[in-house]
Amino acid sequence: MDIYNFGKELIVEAGKFIETRMTHEFQVDSKSNPNDLVTDVDKETEQLLYTRILERFPDHRIIGEEGHGEDINDTKGVIWIVDPIDGTLNFVHQGENFAISIGVFIDGEPYCGLIYDCMKRDLYHAKYRNGAFVNEQALKPAENIPLNQSLIAINPKRILSDATRSPFFEIMAKSRSVRSYGSAALEFAMLAKGQISALMFLKLYPWDYTGGVIITGELGYKTTDIYGDELPLLSSASVISGNPKIHGEIIEHFKDDKTLHEFHDAFHDL
Amino acid sequence: MDIYNFGKELIVEAGKFIETRMTHEFQVDSKSNPNDLVTDVDKETEQLLYTRILERFPDHRIIGEEGHGEDINDTKGVIWIVDPIDGTLNFVHQGENFAISIGVFIDGEPYCGLIYDCMKRDLYHAKYRNGAFVNEQALKPAENIPLNQSLIAINPKRILSDATRSPFFEIMAKSRSVRSYGSAALEFAMLAKGQISALMFLKLYPWDYTGGVIITGELGYKTTDIYGDELPLLSSASVISGNPKIHGEIIEHFKDDKTLHEFHDAFHDL
Repeated sequence: MDIYNFGKELIVEAGKFIETRMTHEFQVDSKSNPNDLVTDVDKETEQLLYTRILERFPDHRIIGEEGHGEDINDTKGVIWIVDPIDGTLNFVHQGENFAISIGVFIDGEPYCGLIYDCMKRDLYHAKYRNGAFVNEQALKPAENIPLNQSLIAINPKRILSDATRSPFFEIMAKSRSVRSYGSAALEFAMLAKGQISALMFLKLYPWDYTGGVIITGELGYKTTDIYGDELPLLSSASVISGNPKIHGEIIEHFKDDKTLHEFHDAFHDL
Repeated sequence: MDIYNFGKELIVEAGKFIETRMTHEFQVDSKSNPNDLVTDVDKETEQLLYTRILERFPDHRIIGEEGHGEDINDTKGVIWIVDPIDGTLNFVHQGENFAISIGVFIDGEPYCGLIYDCMKRDLYHAKYRNGAFVNEQALKPAENIPLNQSLIAINPKRILSDATRSPFFEIMAKSRSVRSYGSAALEFAMLAKGQISALMFLKLYPWDYTGGVIITGELGYKTTDIYGDELPLLSSASVISGNPKIHGEIIEHFKDDKTLHEFHDAFHDL
């Protein structure tokens, strides 16, 4: 079995683990602190992914939200970038609307992307230059819907700063409507399904976006930081993703905004 | 059959109609304009509800988003307040995440509330002082989770005005995180399930909120306008809903905000 098919089986196994663990815990002890629970499940799921990957591919390396791979400083060989639970607060408060996200890279080049919405049992997956799918169904290519006809996703709390309001407010005002779902991975999945046309984040980490970038990239969606530059694999970044038309419209708003640039660069230690 | 059980059967029938109509249309003619489609389905669904209710209860009156009941100026007798598709843009862009919403009042007093997420086939329903349910399952009473531990739902585009930013920004900053789903009815349903702790809207109409207010009211959630006053049945209103604790915390932010009050009153022709 190749890495792609192994990854698909693994992410579904991890999803079953989360579903069982969560259902079990919530049923057995309703007084347990949900914050502790998520910490436990998050770490255990990352450990499960870590163990299975290294059992099978001892020379692969893994970067995870829960602490694995902090010492990785180059992109040589095969690197798995994993987020065991993207949408932690949804996991705690809603018991759904979270996902496992995985991006695999070989020598820094995208190899495959996986997002698993384990409560809905929807697996979004793409092998680089082989199309993108939800379960067995091929996803449709990006359409060039402009901003004024689009639903866009943001994180409202992140744009409260004086330095960031102005361009984001202009973009929001021009859009048809604004959504916020609390999981970047699932917002990439909604982009892949054409349910939203763009998403904008001031700060995400590679485990939040690599799976989604590979999947949506297969469909012609474009993802960059606010400057229009490619996203890094080993550090945080702002993330602007959408069809090429809306992506260009949005990036235009950030172009000459020095206040935003300064805020952004400090925020990412650039 | 009483009004409540009739209403439950009717809203499911209307949901099946929408689902069939939408699936059929999208399959038959993918080039049809989704905006025209939603207008058609919206109107046809309201007509279906209107016809069925009056066939059965000729003396009832109906207020609907699509134009019925504009001449109603009093709340005597039985009034059905219906929104055939709450979350129109989600219907158009996402093909899901919308709902039918119904509130029934007798002489101005709440009688029953119904929200049907027809794509998920989840029926939220409550008869006044008889508890609230999703399908056959009783929903849990509101817990007094404070703002700083809560997910809250807003419409981000609506708080772009200078007059409204300040209190909403303070509330958002204090919250644990902010969500926006694009359907007030479904946000009331999420409140009823405890998935969010509050929702805030600057302007809704009775067909957007009456079903949700009755359902969540059964569980101990409190809903008022920004002044803390009860919501009207025959005109638009601001809508602040949440458990009693968070509702009090939010209302406190609006209390002495004259700029907001002036904006609000002009917005609602008060």
